Amino acid sequence: MKLEIEKYFDRLWPINRSLTGNGNRETLSILSELVDLNVMEIPSGTQCFDWTVPPEWNVKEAWVKDSSGKKIIDFKENNLHLIGYSQGFEGRLSLDELKQHLHSSPEQPDVIPYRTSYYESRWGFCLSHTQLKSLKEDNYEVKIDAEHNPKGSMTIGEAVIQGETEREILISTYICHPSMANNELSGPLVSSFLYSKLKSGIPAYHTLRFIFVPETIGAIWYLSENGNRLKEKLAAGFVLTCIGDDGAFTYKRSRRGNSVADRCAEYVLTNSNSKFTVEDFFPTGSDERQFCSPGFNLPVGSLMRTRYGKFDEYHTSADDKSFISFRAIEDSVNLCAAVIDAVDKNAVYKNLMPYCEPQLGKRGLYPTLGSKTDTSQYVNAMMWVLNQSDGMKDLLEISNRSGIRFSEIIDAAESLKKSGLSERIS
Amino acid sequence: MKLEIEKYFDRLWPINRSLTGNGNRETLSILSELVDLNVMEIPSGTQCFDWTVPPEWNVKEAWVKDSSGKKIIDFKENNLHLIGYSQGFEGRLSLDELKQHLHSSPEQPDVIPYRTSYYESRWGFCLSHTQLKSLKEDNYEVKIDAEHNPKGSMTIGEAVIQGETEREILISTYICHPSMANNELSGPLVSSFLYSKLKSGIPAYHTLRFIFVPETIGAIWYLSENGNRLKEKLAAGFVLTCIGDDGAFTYKRSRRGNSVADRCAEYVLTNSNSKFTVEDFFPTGSDERQFCSPGFNLPVGSLMRTRYGKFDEYHTSADDKSFISFRAIEDSVNLCAAVIDAVDKNAVYKNLMPYCEPQLGKRGLYPTLGSKTDTSQYVNAMMWVLNQSDGMKDLLEISNRSGIRFSEIIDAAESLKKSGLSERIS
Amino acid sequence: MKLEIEKYFDRLWPINRSLTGNGNRETLSILSELVDLNVMEIPSGTQCFDWTVPPEWNVKEAWVKDSSGKKIIDFKENNLHLIGYSQGFEGRLSLDELKQHLHSSPEQPDVIPYRTSYYESRWGFCLSHTQLKSLKEDNYEVKIDAEHNPKGSMTIGEAVIQGETEREILISTYICHPSMANNELSGPLVSSFLYSKLKSGIPAYHTLRFIFVPETIGAIWYLSENGNRLKEKLAAGFVLTCIGDDGAFTYKRSRRGNSVADRCAEYVLTNSNSKFTVEDFFPTGSDERQFCSPGFNLPVGSLMRTRYGKFDEYHTSADDKSFISFRAIEDSVNLCAAVIDAVDKNAVYKNLMPYCEPQLGKRGLYPTLGSKTDTSQYVNAMMWVLNQSDGMKDLLEISNRSGIRFSEIIDAAESLKKSGLSERIS
Repeated sequence: MKLEIEKYFDRLWPINRSLTGNGNRETLSILSELVDLNVMEIPSGTQCFDWTVPPEWNVKEAWVKDSSGKKIIDFKENNLHLIGYSQGFEGRLSLDELKQHLHSSPEQPDVIPYRTSYYESRWGFCLSHTQLKSLKEDNYEVKIDAEHNPKGSMTIGEAVIQGETEREILISTYICHPSMANNELSGPLVSSFLYSKLKSGIPAYHTLRFIFVPETIGAIWYLSENGNRLKEKLAAGFVLTCIGDDGAFTYKRSRRGNSVADRCAEYVLTNSNSKFTVEDFFPTGSDERQFCSPGFNLPVGSLMRTRYGKFDEYHTSADDKSFISFRAIEDSVNLCAAVIDAVDKNAVYKNLMPYCEPQLGKRGLYPTLGSKTDTSQYVNAMMWVLNQSDGMKDLLEISNRSGIRFSEIIDAAESLKKSGLSERIS
Repeated sequence: MKLEIEKYFDRLWPINRSLTGNGNRETLSILSELVDLNVMEIPSGTQCFDWTVPPEWNVKEAWVKDSSGKKIIDFKENNLHLIGYSQGFEGRLSLDELKQHLHSSPEQPDVIPYRTSYYESRWGFCLSHTQLKSLKEDNYEVKIDAEHNPKGSMTIGEAVIQGETEREILISTYICHPSMANNELSGPLVSSFLYSKLKSGIPAYHTLRFIFVPETIGAIWYLSENGNRLKEKLAAGFVLTCIGDDGAFTYKRSRRGNSVADRCAEYVLTNSNSKFTVEDFFPTGSDERQFCSPGFNLPVGSLMRTRYGKFDEYHTSADDKSFISFRAIEDSVNLCAAVIDAVDKNAVYKNLMPYCEPQLGKRGLYPTLGSKTDTSQYVNAMMWVLNQSDGMKDLLEISNRSGIRFSEIIDAAESLKKSGLSERIS
Repeated sequence: MKLEIEKYFDRLWPINRSLTGNGNRETLSILSELVDLNVMEIPSGTQCFDWTVPPEWNVKEAWVKDSSGKKIIDFKENNLHLIGYSQGFEGRLSLDELKQHLHSSPEQPDVIPYRTSYYESRWGFCLSHTQLKSLKEDNYEVKIDAEHNPKGSMTIGEAVIQGETEREILISTYICHPSMANNELSGPLVSSFLYSKLKSGIPAYHTLRFIFVPETIGAIWYLSENGNRLKEKLAAGFVLTCIGDDGAFTYKRSRRGNSVADRCAEYVLTNSNSKFTVEDFFPTGSDERQFCSPGFNLPVGSLMRTRYGKFDEYHTSADDKSFISFRAIEDSVNLCAAVIDAVDKNAVYKNLMPYCEPQLGKRGLYPTLGSKTDTSQYVNAMMWVLNQSDGMKDLLEISNRSGIRFSEIIDAAESLKKSGLSERIS
């Protein structure tokens, strides 16, 4: 899988992604080879809660030339050079005039920082501080051929793996970052390969839904259209971001703090051989900000490796192919699959014979010869599931209370269901 | 009391008890000398929840003879030799054929194991592994003269000590084990002597109910008839089992984990001079499995000394008179009486003057000369009870919150009730 | 402020205060110079819950003379010499007869103890044990010219600083103690100077109510008239007592244990530079006994320095000016003001745009140029307040959960309110 992931990475890397634009369309078109994406176009100007879908932004070229005609900054070389959503501009400027429009990071002098100005009209370039300091007094020529089309649209993708029920597990990732690797080609790649891994399996109890949206405005638009359904149907959701580097996993809890998403993710991480950190919810970050806003308060956590803001390369040109690992991305796919599997199997059952024990012996579930040790671990697990299946506790809680492994509790629960002694209610 | 207990033990020991049969009738008849038992016969074939009362089982004789005519296994010598509920059989068998029907414990080669086959037709004998290995090739004669009478019945006993109210405390023990001492002559003996100790005392607030039933099917039948009353009226219940050896006490909590039964038993044990262990509920064990099934979820715990499954003699012929102690049984009776007393006195009161303090002085409950130290411990206890008696908290909770001994809190509460300042509401 | 406090102390000190009487009127009249008191007279005989307002007690003179005519005990010298509410008496007694009516503290031989007999007819004097032992056989003359007027009244004072809403913060202190300093001129002094400090400030969200009542009967009468309003409107209340010595602060929690009063007082103490102790509620003490009786269960705690019963001088003539410190009283005023301010600002807000985030950028609350570190502490605080303002959590809880200082959370919340993004709901 590693090699295939790398191939997709290399194709996606140079594309200029943003909130809107052809780069996003191209990105989703490539991912469509892996994912049965339903691509939607949301017209610029569409209202969603307190927000408005912005004009569609596309850039033809953007550069600065010195008086010798040499391009000293060129969007074609690195799309981080141009401020995201920069206005168009054409003109000649002195060094001082130009510097009003140049952005660098003095504390990281060798990288190009990533800057955006989505909702305020501005033009500008980003460059390394080293380059900035080397610029000489000159007569510079600037050209930014960029369009903000109010009749354009915002492009998003959605894919569904239908399960046995309408209860949902949501995987959300974002497609609005230009050429940065961990943040954020890792999320779309993990999400796509995860889809690919799960789509041909046995249908799950839950319907799995994958969304590929621009951060913030995309999630907000999605919730404006689908929030009520999610409030009713969502069992658990995960935002995937910064999930491609070699660092330990990070799980950021949902606002609820002990939702099914949280308990299953922490269970899988605890029982994996991976190092990991768990963080309580905080209201900055990525699209969990929207999913966990107080009006929705959805059970959505965030699966990461080294968390945004915790690595120096974050939001700079140094977040490139050398910073991530395709082996790590493959491991992330597998971990996400395990978390989804845990959510899917973490059923709540209702014991249909809750008054006294049902007679397991006549159903072949209990040894007929009573002895000192007639309660094997298997029988023990069934007894626990029967006793605790009052329609309130899920199997992970039963596993915790009984001290019996989750997988054994799941097996016992499925035997009981087959015998007609219980029904799955969520 | 010790000597009297031993006399009853000796009379009860040889009787062959099982789910049904004359042995159970004889057992209850002997215990009737101590307990005002209402003995009931439940017809074989009676449905109760998922179960059916089995045919009545009685054994006339059961033995194996070698070809010399010598009885090498004889039910008359030890009723563990015959599998519980064994089918009848008569015939001659080679050693190999016989061995299909012989059960031993290789890991405990010198004891006869206890085996039952209540709900599957089978015949067989149990013997020590040492004896099994010593059997030679021979032509064996087998005779099991056993009846499974579908027109018989299951025998159970019930006794009530009427209290001031219909709120109940339940003591449950089981009478279906043949000649084993701790498991389970100790339970019926402790229960009977406890009844005897309590019946002539001051009527308690609670009605005390004692049941003597075969394990599982007896408790299930009892719940099928009385479960709704227990859901409404039961304050606390205790299953007594394995309560005659010299080991430390064990209290196994009810499924609720913090029921009145649990809190009172743990309070009494903590304040006794005895060593003890507390175990959380688990759904295997004895009749608490039924009382604590999710449909009933009754406040029933289990009082034991060394718990079933935790002593090597468990379910073997080594669980005999030498394994138990009549001094221990007497101590168990006293401990059970203390636990019942704690439940009985652990009232919930409702302060009838909940707005500000009532004027204790004019009722003679408060010193009339105000001074630096006008709140004696007794006044202090009354103040706590008045302040906390909002109809929710019981006296044990008030004792815990105030740090004042339970007995002092009880005294204060009773003074306040006498003065008309509060009423007992449970 | 210290000097002014001392001037008031010196004027109040010699006055004979009790449940009723002219001393209480005089005390409130002096405090009226600081507080806009509404003074009320509650007729003797008024019923309130289980209690009756007692006859009004006034003393003209009270002394014991020896046979030489020398006054050996004189109420004019120290009003603790006379038992509170002592009956009148005139007569000649032998030493033995007199001793029936003398009270001393053998364990503190040099102080006059404080004794009362409010609800039982008694006459008597208090004196040091040293003096008691020095009394010789003699013919003593006793005169107590005291009136118990059933047509009199009980005097109480109330003052209100109107806030923006009818939600209330209550400050309660008591005026029934004769010449003792910490217990209890400190409470009325702190309360009065606190009123004085707060009355000319910006109107608070809460209405502040100050009551000056005799202990127990005064609080009970107040609750009989105002209890229903307090149940509906009271946000937090504090009984001020023993708050003038140099010891560390003591906060005694309300019966609820985690009320707004409790959390705010503990927050302020924790963040002050003062040493302090927190005690759980107990139902003896001062007027929190009435406020926290189970029928009211109001969020009222008690602010003290060295708690009643914890200093040797308590309820003796040694609790005098030398035991307290005017610097400590001033600090107490400031601490109480800080606690009231914390309660007042500890709002619950309701996010009016709870579905996804509101767009802070267009309101000037978020930087328009996206970068690596676009969430300053200020933005971070706003995000927390928005996310948690579901109408349930107050700002102190949000401060605790986020780890952001309470003052920064308050600032953020006020910005959001100004922007119309939230409303204060309590």
